[in-house]
Parts: sequence; structure tokens; C-alpha cells
Amino acid sequence: MAMAAADAARRRVLVTGATGFIGYHCLAPLVERGFEVIATHCSREPPALPGVTWLAADLLEAGAAARVVAAARATHLLHLAWYVEPGRMIASPDNLRWVSASLDLMRAFREQGGERCVVSGSCYEYDWRYGYLSAALTPRTPDTFYGCAKNGLYETFRGYCAATGLAGAWGRVYFLYGPRENPRRLVSSVILALLAGREAPSSHGEQVRDYMHVQDVADALVALLDSPATGAWDIASGRAVTIRHIVERIGVLTGRAGLLRIGALPARANDLPLVVGDPTALQQQLGWRPQFDLDRGLAHTIDWWRSHS
Amino acid sequence: MAMAAADAARRRVLVTGATGFIGYHCLAPLVERGFEVIATHCSREPPALPGVTWLAADLLEAGAAARVVAAARATHLLHLAWYVEPGRMIASPDNLRWVSASLDLMRAFREQGGERCVVSGSCYEYDWRYGYLSAALTPRTPDTFYGCAKNGLYETFRGYCAATGLAGAWGRVYFLYGPRENPRRLVSSVILALLAGREAPSSHGEQVRDYMHVQDVADALVALLDSPATGAWDIASGRAVTIRHIVERIGVLTGRAGLLRIGALPARANDLPLVVGDPTALQQQLGWRPQFDLDRGLAHTIDWWRSHS
Repeated sequence: MAMAAADAARRRVLVTGATGFIGYHCLAPLVERGFEVIATHCSREPPALPGVTWLAADLLEAGAAARVVAAARATHLLHLAWYVEPGRMIASPDNLRWVSASLDLMRAFREQGGERCVVSGSCYEYDWRYGYLSAALTPRTPDTFYGCAKNGLYETFRGYCAATGLAGAWGRVYFLYGPRENPRRLVSSVILALLAGREAPSSHGEQVRDYMHVQDVADALVALLDSPATGAWDIASGRAVTIRHIVERIGVLTGRAGLLRIGALPARANDLPLVVGDPTALQQQLGWRPQFDLDRGLAHTIDWWRSHS
Repeated sequence: MAMAAADAARRRVLVTGATGFIGYHCLAPLVERGFEVIATHCSREPPALPGVTWLAADLLEAGAAARVVAAARATHLLHLAWYVEPGRMIASPDNLRWVSASLDLMRAFREQGGERCVVSGSCYEYDWRYGYLSAALTPRTPDTFYGCAKNGLYETFRGYCAATGLAGAWGRVYFLYGPRENPRRLVSSVILALLAGREAPSSHGEQVRDYMHVQDVADALVALLDSPATGAWDIASGRAVTIRHIVERIGVLTGRAGLLRIGALPARANDLPLVVGDPTALQQQLGWRPQFDLDRGLAHTIDWWRSHS
């Protein structure tokens, strides 16, 4: 690893969205891989972390991208910032602002001499009716604004990389759970209810989804950044698990299965039966392996909430 | 037409790129249809035209979109501005800036109360290997930055329209010729050479392309704006004509066929044999018909250059 140490001085990464769910979990792995980390934070107070320098910035403000890029002088960019308010992100007009802000950031980064950029995309870019989703095969004809915006940004990004020589990769993230998740999201909300001794209502739960522990997602994005890989990658487990199974495992692992109320909530309109990603490229070409299986990941998350709620 | 006159006060269109090749040809038809026209111009001096109010604006400048939109207070937006330098537009990094500027403009327009927006897209958004291109069928997997940028903008635009209720349509433009074309483009350059008594070199010319007179293209975009239609539309003739045929007709119509040097120039790399658009939707659903066939269009263009060169 002598070479990695020698290279460290030249490897500076600017991380946006670094106080967010995925962003936070990228910071330690980046430091471990020898990156000097410059991380942006906006509304939330940033945590003190060794090896991480924080920059306050609202990337939606005019001129913010140029200012942050000039301050960071980074060789690498890991762009994760986006509007992610549960229940609102899918249709919010603010998705347009994040496309525009992301383009400004990419351009400022490249023009300042940036070399390599990884951006978080989403399984929402695909046509979910295909069920099993793969960058290699699946048409990207999203029917949500969030999906359209990420797909629109991806199209522009891949063209910009080809036109300017920027080494860019795009990691399409699927469903997540883990420490620090927004308490209104599925896994957090069920864990928090059960730990508090409250009933946990959920929908029928027969939907099959590709869920990953956030640390595995973060590690995959960092591995992508720290590789020469370009193009679009599915950051997916490939494991087809029902929501019902996840909820039931939380019941077993907390010892409070009696508080589950599966079927008490209506399913969302247009909640398609199967959304599973293809992990082949990630596993075979990038050599990535998840650290957590579902039971270990849920147990880890339950432990974290026990000590943080 | 009493109703159209009564409505005129409420129909104000902001036209960007209005001194450009297509934009200029949209102005008279818009005025004829009863629109009050606010047109932006950037580097070029704007022509004085009855019914058209000019606004100087460089839409790539920060804040320009908001300023122009606030000044125009338009109900309609016809967004044509883009970087179109021949030979450079296909790969220029500036395509990214135009995506970002276009998003800023759409958002400012919608937030100010704008109702209807038509944007010029391009046949470059499609995978040309399909040859016969149609919004209804053809995969959009462009291999140029210009195509990626337009496609990325389209994806974001269609999602934004759905999310905000903006009535938006997207007109994919194919190949054009006509008065005021950049003299370095195919039809203009051949006409100008022959009119000047110079040799006109061209490639083998066996490529089949869908060419339309710019006035027909402009009329179709204006018809789209002045309709309730949404979604993506091919602004195409559907006529499969070889470049060689176009060049030979210019030779005949100018009486200088002897100066043609077909085959004297190499064909471009990756110059696919067939690029023809599907005019079915435009003709059947929008009821649009071209004014010019190829011979009439070329004769009209030659006459224009005779009096302007």
C-alpha cells in the first residue's frame, strides 16, 4: 500500500450531500482509501470526522458550485446531493433545480481540472414494468419526475464526459435502510415503532424490492469512485425480498412481532410487484461484495436505533 | 376570427433564439396567429419587424432567464436558443450550459405563471442506426453530446411538465435549408459557390436525409405552440432524399450543374446511410402540411441568396 500512501496527496475528493444518508456513510471509507475529503453541508450541522474538511454550501444558490469547486480544488467529485424529502421527492418541482445545480457543479469541477466524477443515480430512471432492472438492458422511460430528472441528468452527464474526457461513472441506487435513515422511511419507522412498544402498520408487503444496507451502498459508490470504471452501474444486491419479509424479520429481531400490523395501510397506487436490480457488473467487473446480508443488516440497524432513539 | 382578436391580448409569446435560422422564420407566423411577440436577441442586431418587441439577453448569464421572463410576462414560451456553430455544436462542452440555461428558463417561465411551452429538440436525440426515426418507436440512445444534451433536457422537461401542469411540447427538428442559413452549411454553401461561379465540392452524397425548408419547420413549431398538443413530435417531411439529389437539383436550378464536384470531399466518419423522420403524427394529429416541396424550396432559397449575396 506504499503507492496508495504516496498518491494520497494528489487524491482530493469533493463530496456533496455529505451529511445525507448515503453521503455520511461514504466519508470513513473515502478516508480509509487515502482520499483527502472535502465535504459540503447545507442545513444540517456537520459531524466532526477525522480526515474530513467541511464546507458550508447551498448548491441551489447561484454561484455556489463555482465557489465550492474553487475552494476544494479536488481531483475527484462524489456528487450525492439532491432533494430527498420522503413522500415529496418523487414529484417535487425542485427536481429540476437539482438537475441544473448538478450540471453547474460538473462543469465547474471539470473546468477547474477535476479528473473523475461519480454521481448517484436511481432505479427510478428505469421503466419498472420490466421488474428486473439492468443498465445493460432495461429501457429508461421513467414515469416520475424524480426518475425523469435523474435520467435527464445522466444523459447530459454521459455526453459531457465523452465530450470533455471527464472520467465519469453513474451509480443507480435501489432501496436502502440502515443507521441515520429518515425516521419516516419504511425500515426506520417499523424499527422505531417496535422499539417504542407501538404498533407498526404497513401495507400488504407483497411487493418485491431490492434492499441494501446503506453502508454497502456507500462502499459500492466509493469503490466505483476509486476505480477507472465509467458508465452506468446498478448499485443493487440482486436479492428479491418482499417488504413483508423485511417487516417480519424486524419483528423477530426486536422480539416484538406481535406489534406488526401488516396490511393495515393501503398499498400505494401503481406500486409495482417487482423491482430488483442486476448486480452482475458491480460484482463481476468491480469485484464488489456486500458486507451485510439482510438479517445482519437489520440487526445492525436495530442496534443503532436502540442507542440513538 | 373575432375570437382570435379578442384573445390576442392574453397571448404573449416569449421567443428565444429569435435571430437564429429557425427563430427568425417563426416571428411572422406568430404575429399572424395573433400572438404578441417578445423576442430575445444576443450577439446579432435584431431586425425591425411589426408586432415584435426585442429584448437583449445572453441566456447563459446567471440571472438572465429570470430577468427575461419577468420582463416578458408571457403566457407562451417558444424556446429555440442553443449553441449551433456548424462543425462544433455536435461535441461542444457548451451543450451542457444550454441544458442548464434551458432548465432555468423553463422554471422561471412556469413560476411566473407561464402556461404553454414548446422547445426545439433534434433528430440527434435518436439512435440513428434505426434509420427511420419516430417519437413513437425509436430508442433515444444518442452518441453525440448535442444529442445527449437535447435528450437529457427533454427527459427533465417532460417530467417537469407532468409535475407542474405546464403544457409542454417538444419538436424534434431534422435537416433544414432555406433563406438566412449559415453559409457554411450544405445547401447554402453549394448555392453560394454556384452563384459565384465557383466549383462546389461535396461528398459522395449517397446519404439519405430528411430535409425541410426552414419556413415549413418554423410553421410546424408555431402550429405546435398554437395547439393543445403535448409530448414529443417529429418535425419531419418523411421524404427520403439523397444529398446527391439535393446538390444536383441546385445545379439544375442555378443552371450551373457543371460546377458540381460530387465525391470531391470525403464523407464524414460514421455518416449513417439513412436518417428520415416519421411525419405521421405531425400531419395526421396536428393537421400540418408543408408549403414547399424540394424543388420549390430550393428555388426559393436560390432566389433569396441571389438578392442577398
